[in-house]
Amino acid sequence: MFRPHILQMSGYVPGEQPRDQQFVKLNTNENPYPCSPRVKAAVGRAITEGLQRYPDPLATSFRELAAEVHRAELPQITPDWILCGNGSDDLLTMLTRCFVGPGQGVRFPRPSYVLYATLAALQEAFLDVVDFDAAWRLGERFAEPDPRVRLALLPNPNSPSGTMMAPAEVAAVADALPCPLVVDEAYVDFADANCLPLVGRNERVIVTRSMSKSYGLAGLRFGYAVAQPQVIEQMIKVKDSYNCDALSIAGATAALGDREWFAANRAAVLASRARLDEELARLGFAGCPSQANFLWRRHAEQPSAALYSGLKELGVLVRYMNYGDWGDGLRITVGSDPQIDVLLDRLRRLVPSR
Amino acid sequence: MFRPHILQMSGYVPGEQPRDQQFVKLNTNENPYPCSPRVKAAVGRAITEGLQRYPDPLATSFRELAAEVHRAELPQITPDWILCGNGSDDLLTMLTRCFVGPGQGVRFPRPSYVLYATLAALQEAFLDVVDFDAAWRLGERFAEPDPRVRLALLPNPNSPSGTMMAPAEVAAVADALPCPLVVDEAYVDFADANCLPLVGRNERVIVTRSMSKSYGLAGLRFGYAVAQPQVIEQMIKVKDSYNCDALSIAGATAALGDREWFAANRAAVLASRARLDEELARLGFAGCPSQANFLWRRHAEQPSAALYSGLKELGVLVRYMNYGDWGDGLRITVGSDPQIDVLLDRLRRLVPSR
Repeated sequence: MFRPHILQMSGYVPGEQPRDQQFVKLNTNENPYPCSPRVKAAVGRAITEGLQRYPDPLATSFRELAAEVHRAELPQITPDWILCGNGSDDLLTMLTRCFVGPGQGVRFPRPSYVLYATLAALQEAFLDVVDFDAAWRLGERFAEPDPRVRLALLPNPNSPSGTMMAPAEVAAVADALPCPLVVDEAYVDFADANCLPLVGRNERVIVTRSMSKSYGLAGLRFGYAVAQPQVIEQMIKVKDSYNCDALSIAGATAALGDREWFAANRAAVLASRARLDEELARLGFAGCPSQANFLWRRHAEQPSAALYSGLKELGVLVRYMNYGDWGDGLRITVGSDPQIDVLLDRLRRLVPSR
Repeated sequence: MFRPHILQMSGYVPGEQPRDQQFVKLNTNENPYPCSPRVKAAVGRAITEGLQRYPDPLATSFRELAAEVHRAELPQITPDWILCGNGSDDLLTMLTRCFVGPGQGVRFPRPSYVLYATLAALQEAFLDVVDFDAAWRLGERFAEPDPRVRLALLPNPNSPSGTMMAPAEVAAVADALPCPLVVDEAYVDFADANCLPLVGRNERVIVTRSMSKSYGLAGLRFGYAVAQPQVIEQMIKVKDSYNCDALSIAGATAALGDREWFAANRAAVLASRARLDEELARLGFAGCPSQANFLWRRHAEQPSAALYSGLKELGVLVRYMNYGDWGDGLRITVGSDPQIDVLLDRLRRLVPSR
């Protein structure tokens, strides 16, 4: 009774989420620090107001604040340039449903976010995969027009690499492509630049953001898209009527409003990232500098799969990614300094001293 | 750049959700009472544990408890018979994506939940609508096999009528249909019977439940589906990886566990429903007895649209539904007794005394 492509596909497997809390967990790019204390206060107020009513279908309070926060980067922005989602995955789902049907194509880079292939498969679309080269550059092929390709997805910064395409280059890709270009900025708050300004210049550019990483709210499920209002208007038709709940709207709005927490947290993660980068290099790991809250690394001698297993046995979870003929490696989340200390200690047991 | 069927469709318009809290709000079947106090405590604990981690992708704690709660009705049930969703709308979305593609059909009754037509349109499916007769009976046509129809949706109790098809009759429909039959039991906790036992006998029966109405948690967005494990296993492929957030999982689990709150709330709503039914009859309204937390009524003389507008001017929101050639009417949520007092007072100003 199921549609054949559903039966044939394998579902997306998220990173391990052990319930026992025993692991030093550096595998799913969560923020190591608790979210802004304003979140708890706002959620408490929302419960006191009562959960028996449906939430605001458009999360107006969040959209109003997000428009203010982003005005410096995108002067035209008003709340109707913003659409909230139950995590940015919800927005990526809406976007594939808006643009791609059976037999049409979705273009995205490899290696990148593994979910993209699942979202395309759910739409019975074909995958138009463009490989990164060894230095994490995307060739010109990514910008080549193809009438069958109806949507291009560009994670920027990319996962697992943490590398980034400069906004001017993204603008050129968007101008060359006849289809919409979704710039997935889940990690952009840890980077030096972002692509929000492009949204004002090209209606085919849609930027998605996540509160999971840089606001420490992976458990809350909240993200948003920024696009021109005529694009948002069509996307609204595809979303679940009440896709964000009253507590996540209240919590995400409070978190977005706490700019001091945000700045302090970002500074802490960037400082730890620099330290982790340096220490891993000392242990013989190599990889590109990261613009995100994780590092993609390979060891000069030890195979990545063995290091993943060895670390897991020693109580540290990192993400082992195997991209077939492209190769494999370890994606290591920038944890707190004590977590990094544990990781480095365990790694010293696993890799020969140099 | 949007797919043509998205551009052509009009989106689902949820019932009015005025933000100003001034209205006596009897238009969207919300529970008039605050949820179990255990919800606030559980949500508080979840925040204290930290929101920086991703939630459990399958909401295991909820599934384990729901299996216990429903074991009396469905002895075979275990957690793998249950799938949680971001509201039961999320589950209905997954189900249409699982079973229906472009050019295939979705069967459902009219009048019923207006969202069904939107979900079918999003899949480029055709609508196979079976009209209720004036006494809210569905003819044999609903059970007739048709190879083009890939999914049948039966809201039971139905909205806006509040009427119900007996489980034995639903079983016969499911046995006759070659496609899956989703029994949408969003309102079933206010009814005398339910269709959970059928899930054990027929793998094509999928029951959906909502915490929005009978647990007073419309703001939290939590629902679940009950189906045989091989069905749930495929549905998981279609859901967003983290479709329920940590706070809604904690809150919904706590609410489901408070059976005393549930029983007391149900008794209060049913008592108010009986009173509202009687008082509306005295004012000249007619309609079927309801198995849900609302009544579908028409006045003997006054047009429904005028009564809706008159009530709104007087600060009371009810739902005016116009089903074209099928007819129109008012769907009135069973509020608290003070809310019902206000409604009745305003109605007395609008309808001639008898």
